[in-house]
Amino acid sequence: MIGRLNHVAIAVQDLDAACAVYRDTLGATITPPLPQPEHGVTVVFVELPNSKIELMSPLGEGSPIEAFVARNPGGGIHHVCYEVDDILAARDKLKAQGARVLGTGEPRIGAHGKPVLFLHPKDFLGTLVELEQV
Amino acid sequence: MIGRLNHVAIAVQDLDAACAVYRDTLGATITPPLPQPEHGVTVVFVELPNSKIELMSPLGEGSPIEAFVARNPGGGIHHVCYEVDDILAARDKLKAQGARVLGTGEPRIGAHGKPVLFLHPKDFLGTLVELEQV
Repeated sequence: MIGRLNHVAIAVQDLDAACAVYRDTLGATITPPLPQPEHGVTVVFVELPNSKIELMSPLGEGSPIEAFVARNPGGGIHHVCYEVDDILAARDKLKAQGARVLGTGEPRIGAHGKPVLFLHPKDFLGTLVELEQV
Repeated sequence: MIGRLNHVAIAVQDLDAACAVYRDTLGATITPPLPQPEHGVTVVFVELPNSKIELMSPLGEGSPIEAFVARNPGGGIHHVCYEVDDILAARDKLKAQGARVLGTGEPRIGAHGKPVLFLHPKDFLGTLVELEQV
């Protein structure tokens, strides 16, 4: 069911410092910061030849990653995102197997403008999993 | 400097259960378990079209991931691995910028038979980073 590893997301408090780590220290290509007020985050993509790292920091009040960055002030891996062809079919198959889908269970339009769902980390080896329909 | 995202490693206590999550629930292709006594782990690779997930569980006494799985009994992301062309050049550049290389600082032969180094998570956004020369 799952396809490509679309990205690994790292949440940080200080996005400029995070950009410096990937751009200057690790020598990778990064995109300009993209504020996404509707998602409560500002994101920067680290472009690797086969995949991406998504650096994100909280934006505005009540950001969904606020508690995470408070617990991990130096940053931490927040989630991994796998691509699927059909997100509703994927959701229904996962639910039938007892896996928990977060939120309402209805796909939302994610940070890349595509339908996404998040799966409960306790059902996926302690890893928050995002599914993105591509 | 960094190239492809070679893999994301997830450490677990129960490798059979972890395999079931990726093979049965997420419908991915996985490899047979590969015991690596010299590294203190047993590994299974989840083969994605563009990258890999490495599932690993402790093997034998004093496994390097024993403390991690004790802290994260349900599993957790242990590290991410980026490919580099020249691991010694990468190491020297990173050290010159003040980044900490773990262990002796000399590359070891990693789980894939290639030279690897690990970088201190506190210098890399709370993420343990493996570099692998390919």
